[in-house]
Amino acid sequence: MPSLDVVTIGETMIRLSPPDSLRLEQAVSLECSIGGTESNFAVALSRLGMKSAWISRLVDNPLGRRIAAEIRGQGVDTSRIIWTKEGRVGVYFIEFGRLPRASQIIYDRKDSAVSQVTPEEVDWEFVKSARILHLTGITPALSESCHQVVLRAIEEAKKANMLISFDINYRSLLWSPEEAKATLEEIIPEVDIFLSSIPDACLVLKAPTVPEEAAEYLKDRYNIGIVVLTLGGEGSLAYSDKMYRGRIYEAYEVDRVGAGDAFDAGFIYGYLTKGVQKGLDYGGAMASLKYSIAGDMALLILEEIEELLEGRVKGIKR
Amino acid sequence: MPSLDVVTIGETMIRLSPPDSLRLEQAVSLECSIGGTESNFAVALSRLGMKSAWISRLVDNPLGRRIAAEIRGQGVDTSRIIWTKEGRVGVYFIEFGRLPRASQIIYDRKDSAVSQVTPEEVDWEFVKSARILHLTGITPALSESCHQVVLRAIEEAKKANMLISFDINYRSLLWSPEEAKATLEEIIPEVDIFLSSIPDACLVLKAPTVPEEAAEYLKDRYNIGIVVLTLGGEGSLAYSDKMYRGRIYEAYEVDRVGAGDAFDAGFIYGYLTKGVQKGLDYGGAMASLKYSIAGDMALLILEEIEELLEGRVKGIKR
Amino acid sequence: MPSLDVVTIGETMIRLSPPDSLRLEQAVSLECSIGGTESNFAVALSRLGMKSAWISRLVDNPLGRRIAAEIRGQGVDTSRIIWTKEGRVGVYFIEFGRLPRASQIIYDRKDSAVSQVTPEEVDWEFVKSARILHLTGITPALSESCHQVVLRAIEEAKKANMLISFDINYRSLLWSPEEAKATLEEIIPEVDIFLSSIPDACLVLKAPTVPEEAAEYLKDRYNIGIVVLTLGGEGSLAYSDKMYRGRIYEAYEVDRVGAGDAFDAGFIYGYLTKGVQKGLDYGGAMASLKYSIAGDMALLILEEIEELLEGRVKGIKR
Amino acid sequence: MPSLDVVTIGETMIRLSPPDSLRLEQAVSLECSIGGTESNFAVALSRLGMKSAWISRLVDNPLGRRIAAEIRGQGVDTSRIIWTKEGRVGVYFIEFGRLPRASQIIYDRKDSAVSQVTPEEVDWEFVKSARILHLTGITPALSESCHQVVLRAIEEAKKANMLISFDINYRSLLWSPEEAKATLEEIIPEVDIFLSSIPDACLVLKAPTVPEEAAEYLKDRYNIGIVVLTLGGEGSLAYSDKMYRGRIYEAYEVDRVGAGDAFDAGFIYGYLTKGVQKGLDYGGAMASLKYSIAGDMALLILEEIEELLEGRVKGIKR
Amino acid sequence: MPSLDVVTIGETMIRLSPPDSLRLEQAVSLECSIGGTESNFAVALSRLGMKSAWISRLVDNPLGRRIAAEIRGQGVDTSRIIWTKEGRVGVYFIEFGRLPRASQIIYDRKDSAVSQVTPEEVDWEFVKSARILHLTGITPALSESCHQVVLRAIEEAKKANMLISFDINYRSLLWSPEEAKATLEEIIPEVDIFLSSIPDACLVLKAPTVPEEAAEYLKDRYNIGIVVLTLGGEGSLAYSDKMYRGRIYEAYEVDRVGAGDAFDAGFIYGYLTKGVQKGLDYGGAMASLKYSIAGDMALLILEEIEELLEGRVKGIKR
Amino acid sequence: MPSLDVVTIGETMIRLSPPDSLRLEQAVSLECSIGGTESNFAVALSRLGMKSAWISRLVDNPLGRRIAAEIRGQGVDTSRIIWTKEGRVGVYFIEFGRLPRASQIIYDRKDSAVSQVTPEEVDWEFVKSARILHLTGITPALSESCHQVVLRAIEEAKKANMLISFDINYRSLLWSPEEAKATLEEIIPEVDIFLSSIPDACLVLKAPTVPEEAAEYLKDRYNIGIVVLTLGGEGSLAYSDKMYRGRIYEAYEVDRVGAGDAFDAGFIYGYLTKGVQKGLDYGGAMASLKYSIAGDMALLILEEIEELLEGRVKGIKR
Repeated sequence: MPSLDVVTIGETMIRLSPPDSLRLEQAVSLECSIGGTESNFAVALSRLGMKSAWISRLVDNPLGRRIAAEIRGQGVDTSRIIWTKEGRVGVYFIEFGRLPRASQIIYDRKDSAVSQVTPEEVDWEFVKSARILHLTGITPALSESCHQVVLRAIEEAKKANMLISFDINYRSLLWSPEEAKATLEEIIPEVDIFLSSIPDACLVLKAPTVPEEAAEYLKDRYNIGIVVLTLGGEGSLAYSDKMYRGRIYEAYEVDRVGAGDAFDAGFIYGYLTKGVQKGLDYGGAMASLKYSIAGDMALLILEEIEELLEGRVKGIKR
Repeated sequence: MPSLDVVTIGETMIRLSPPDSLRLEQAVSLECSIGGTESNFAVALSRLGMKSAWISRLVDNPLGRRIAAEIRGQGVDTSRIIWTKEGRVGVYFIEFGRLPRASQIIYDRKDSAVSQVTPEEVDWEFVKSARILHLTGITPALSESCHQVVLRAIEEAKKANMLISFDINYRSLLWSPEEAKATLEEIIPEVDIFLSSIPDACLVLKAPTVPEEAAEYLKDRYNIGIVVLTLGGEGSLAYSDKMYRGRIYEAYEVDRVGAGDAFDAGFIYGYLTKGVQKGLDYGGAMASLKYSIAGDMALLILEEIEELLEGRVKGIKR
Repeated sequence: MPSLDVVTIGETMIRLSPPDSLRLEQAVSLECSIGGTESNFAVALSRLGMKSAWISRLVDNPLGRRIAAEIRGQGVDTSRIIWTKEGRVGVYFIEFGRLPRASQIIYDRKDSAVSQVTPEEVDWEFVKSARILHLTGITPALSESCHQVVLRAIEEAKKANMLISFDINYRSLLWSPEEAKATLEEIIPEVDIFLSSIPDACLVLKAPTVPEEAAEYLKDRYNIGIVVLTLGGEGSLAYSDKMYRGRIYEAYEVDRVGAGDAFDAGFIYGYLTKGVQKGLDYGGAMASLKYSIAGDMALLILEEIEELLEGRVKGIKR
Repeated sequence: MPSLDVVTIGETMIRLSPPDSLRLEQAVSLECSIGGTESNFAVALSRLGMKSAWISRLVDNPLGRRIAAEIRGQGVDTSRIIWTKEGRVGVYFIEFGRLPRASQIIYDRKDSAVSQVTPEEVDWEFVKSARILHLTGITPALSESCHQVVLRAIEEAKKANMLISFDINYRSLLWSPEEAKATLEEIIPEVDIFLSSIPDACLVLKAPTVPEEAAEYLKDRYNIGIVVLTLGGEGSLAYSDKMYRGRIYEAYEVDRVGAGDAFDAGFIYGYLTKGVQKGLDYGGAMASLKYSIAGDMALLILEEIEELLEGRVKGIKR
Repeated sequence: MPSLDVVTIGETMIRLSPPDSLRLEQAVSLECSIGGTESNFAVALSRLGMKSAWISRLVDNPLGRRIAAEIRGQGVDTSRIIWTKEGRVGVYFIEFGRLPRASQIIYDRKDSAVSQVTPEEVDWEFVKSARILHLTGITPALSESCHQVVLRAIEEAKKANMLISFDINYRSLLWSPEEAKATLEEIIPEVDIFLSSIPDACLVLKAPTVPEEAAEYLKDRYNIGIVVLTLGGEGSLAYSDKMYRGRIYEAYEVDRVGAGDAFDAGFIYGYLTKGVQKGLDYGGAMASLKYSIAGDMALLILEEIEELLEGRVKGIKR
Repeated sequence: MPSLDVVTIGETMIRLSPPDSLRLEQAVSLECSIGGTESNFAVALSRLGMKSAWISRLVDNPLGRRIAAEIRGQGVDTSRIIWTKEGRVGVYFIEFGRLPRASQIIYDRKDSAVSQVTPEEVDWEFVKSARILHLTGITPALSESCHQVVLRAIEEAKKANMLISFDINYRSLLWSPEEAKATLEEIIPEVDIFLSSIPDACLVLKAPTVPEEAAEYLKDRYNIGIVVLTLGGEGSLAYSDKMYRGRIYEAYEVDRVGAGDAFDAGFIYGYLTKGVQKGLDYGGAMASLKYSIAGDMALLILEEIEELLEGRVKGIKR
């Protein structure tokens, strides 16, 4: 049985996006890659040297195989994917806006194979071989059976004394804030490391809008070990024994999708290896670097992150 | 009220295909176009100068707008599309094989907007302004409400003394031959011009495998005015007052999808303007030319078809 | 006879531009689209739900058919295009600069099919079925026969009590300011809605350089109902019963070509539906959004424009 | 003064073609290269080690500079190009057909800069520094002043005792067979090496259709030193002291444009270095190889041609 | 310790090839993938469900990481790659010819990181956890230290009673036939399954040119368990207890590189699961299918291979 | 013997870079062009109308021929390239960063053909036909024989009373600052025009960090006629009879590689035609414009540079 650092469960979709700032209405070719918040997280950690695993349910067709190959290629353990002959792979279209035109996403993920996963299909012994279980608020929103898998995962993790990290990742296209709140309030009290953007925390959990107050509110109300909030252009904040603040870096936006996942991975990496402050530092650096990288995945190496943190010169080394 | 030559009803999907003979597993960009058998038919006829209209139900998002714009751009009347804010646009992935590797299609069309169309939503007066109603066996297979729309369309056409043309277009991914037979046997006796590939006719309607016998069998059993069968490499055959035979032309396969729709359009055009034999001639020429054209649509002009039929020289005119 | 909102007459060319900020000297492929100020205007209005028509003269070859298909695809009535077997389709090459390198256009439009259009070829009854006739200063500059078509169009519009809108659109590669002034001074007094950039108005019509003074000068001298001036980074200004000011929005320049046409369309739309101030508002929003869209055409929907005007949040909706 | 092997005079255009067997109506990008029969010839010879020069008249804009750079890059002397600030560069669009769809060319070369070249602009001393003057029937068809340049070139070449080679290269889009005959019959009697396809010779010069008879007819009637005819799939034939026959090789057609120019270059190279038979051999090999190469230019090296002629193995050398 | 089916050791390079049949001299972009005979073999087997591992030495830079990720993505165990900070990754350029133009390879692999691998760096316990050791004649040709690694691998395999399979894969750009013979004759007598093309066997090992005679000669001379020879268009042949013959299938050549590796993988798979005849069958089917797939790797699934072997229909399943 | 303005000697490599801000790990195609500091310089000058020549040693394969063709195409005399059948062409990979991700270069140039050039292979009479010899600090770093060629070039230039210009162009991947200093201190005292970035001057030659002091230090210590220093965002400085300052222009960074070479070319052009101040002006304008141009080469014309210097308007001229 492999001994893992992190295990996560979730959906990864085929991602289709017009190149060169084109609109979906006009593009005659679409860039085709993959994306899903939990696999993004697992990939980012694997590239930093941590042993991560990603569990999902995929159709055994070219789209499903492609998703698995790309995640496995980045070193993530994909051996517990549940393969099915039937069903569909979720798809999302993303049109990248340019000022003043907004970016636009069309999710087409309903009834995907993973939405039909059941707790019985998951290898819980494998899950329990990890130190950390990472979950997000997307999975329980996908379907009732996904919701059950999340609840069971938490139960199993508790049995094995694993740490549980959790990011709200609110998706308004999947459920209303009220639905989200009802479901997540069952989950969050079990969480050790709670991650959220400040708007998600306010909208779904009715946290106060002042970040420090929100952190206190969440920590107290749900009795969480560490509350980590990302503040957009204002950096980030963590509250455990005390308040910590993290910064972000000026970035050219090639592709912001996955920046939150990169932050989460950076926080977990930094926190586990060097404590809360380093968690915010790595999270901020990785999220900023992700902005400059096309695709969902934070294709970074540790050295790049540390060079940014240390402010080492960035000219072309020739 | 416009006076139309042909009206048709059906589904058109976003079509995604890897470029350059790549496999779906390896392509990082997919060519994005549109395709649907009924709109292919309407487009081909419109380009020949006939007034055609296509009716469907589309989501008012970039994918739906794109489908409408491409069909409208080819001169097809799209004014009776039923637009909806909710729902999804069907998608299909096609990987073009190269010998000995087979081509492969992944349909992802379930629960698309058009599958929820109802007879009440269609502008039947508009439908009745046309001389011909063209339907295919795909539409009743999409959903029960689509089935009802097809039945109502036939009823309305009958009232207006329209000609009805119909192509089986059997799709094994949508229904079994038995289900198809049960449904289509209600429809085919109402049809004036019946079009089918010989394998579809044999598989679904249990026609004999010898083409002439199949034509006789179908004409007699369903009391159809004209039976038209395509015979793959053997050309085509029509049976009305007598048996007619049509040829095909040597073709380099750039993209065979839509060749059957091009045949149908060619048959209708030739038949209406110059009789059954010309129907087979135009059908064969257009299907052959379609093989050389990328995408679902037969982007041809009349002059090209007639140059092929007349055997005029094909060097580069300089 | 269709009842149109707007009809316009002009030239649309094949547009060729290097991708990826390349220079024309180095690009081995050129992006191929279409562009013309009047069809840009008609397309933008059609997408907002207005009935627009575009009249031109095109060669019936792949280049001409392509121009018609793209404009028709966007819902513009193209039924009165005059098709010819002979002649050429105008072409323009555009190299997009990046600071400090300037953008560069090579027009190759001389002796194009439309430059030989005659008043006799145009369906004036169709023209008169519209509420508004839109013209620009490019068309009379193309050839003497184009000039005659413009004069006749104005004459017909007057007979039918249509509104006439007109944009100078001065093209230094077609004629000198003096030539332009001589010709346009015959036209402008007939105009109800006069649109121009401030530099064009100053250069060609010798208007004062202070915008308000220019507006007054033009309104008084040519007895125009509404004078609308675009002021580059300073927004826009309209003068009818009083002075109105409009703003623009911060924009990333993907492609500024057609921003003026988008402004004109926005002004006409806003003015007709909600008055002069809304005209400037819609014009400014559409011109700003056009900067972010590749190609000549303002591929927008009403909702996007209104979201920008209302300052609604622009994050990715997920 | 450089001492040249071959000098040639003619037009080279910007060439635009859809990629991937697309139609011109559907391509959103066009491959952009250059092409002209005389420069193709000069490039092919330069790559074999001969000193060749190409003379033309070009606009000093990005399109003109690009044409010059590409030809110069292949080692051709372009120092006598006549540069002009005014005018246009000719363009041609080529859509590559696939069976049974024909290829299609749209020339848009009228009034190009070179059509206005005058004999006074050409550096005749430079022309006379070469051993061979190569001309084609395209140049006199472009304009009367081009015709005069051709006549003057022949006159100068005669003074300098240069060999004159000439290919009819009939272009039906430029003139009728009768016009061509009238003009070319003034030129051909001055020619030492006459090259033509058999259809051009029959159509324009009314040669008999049997190749040997055509060769005799042409040699006798016009008193030509060597008559060389290409026979399509039948190879080639030369008639000087006796009849010679040349073969061609099986080829996959990537791009046949320029194959005739490659043949001419091969014939001249082989003939000058090793006699008539070798002329046909090199011509046939180069024309066949050209079929496999994209673009107008025969980007070959001597070793490849000789490997083909010697039948050396063609597997991948690893 | 994982229990592997197959382990292999070798070099994988960055592969650069012009798209669209372009020549290396003219391509402005090169397709970038990876390729190496041993990793191709391991990937093909992994995709069929066997546990395979690939060992090599790679530079820890983007090029090296990319090679590892692509191989790992296909399910191959890459955990024993030896990573180095110094050195270079080998590169090869391949220009795909079209008749009559030959394909061309430029290897630029000298002094690559793997050429400096030493026996001490390899995890021999891991190697010994497999059932089969697969080697090729390329590795000992790379450098003396690579040669030593091969010898040590054989020694270790023998200790562990592993099967040894070996393909000559003669590379004339790396060594002469004489050098190859001297080195390989030390290796081949240790081999259980010997694989070679017939030309390699004749050129390097001086086998007779008649395939059956060559097989007997090799089996007897080197005392090999099974001799497998590929015969190009003639299929294949194996000689163990008796002579077996295998066929190939008609194929459109998208990319023949890696067809030999696909054959080897197919033979090993078929042989291990169902005996020698099935080995030739699977090898022939996989090599044929590989021709239709771009890139070095045989991206196949078992079902496709078996469909081909069983002659099941290959139309598009819709 | 041609009479040249400038001759230079150095290495040019194949340059491979991911498109669209992709990382090297993820790009499936790489843009392929050429780049080398000395040829960049020669090209930039040739385009301004100066006669320049570039000498190097290249493999006679597609990669080498491509390098020569591209440089020759820009008008540079390449007739003295030393061609070899053996050896390799240097390659470099460049990944363009986006904030905060740094750009990254992987040089793979070791043992390239030019690194083995010897003084005996160079045509020194040709070298001496130029007014200026331009060298950089890269060439002596490539190999000892390159170092010898540089020393001999200086010796020959001195004999012919040529001006010598020299740019340090320190490459940390080729040698240490100490090695560079030892070698360059033999060379710099022979130089008439010394060019360097300020960081290179400080790092290698231990110049003071204040630009003016650095210029004085270098001029005095090495007894140089003109010292020219580029100061990044601060512009540039020259010191001969007095101190001169030059500016740069705001630029969008498409590709900064070669900006230093463009500066050098601009300085030489301006200095030779109009004195030191104009040298800095042209250098600054060309370096700034180069930022906006993809590829190594400054594809500019004189008019563009002068328009920038004169502050003429930069809108699109229509």
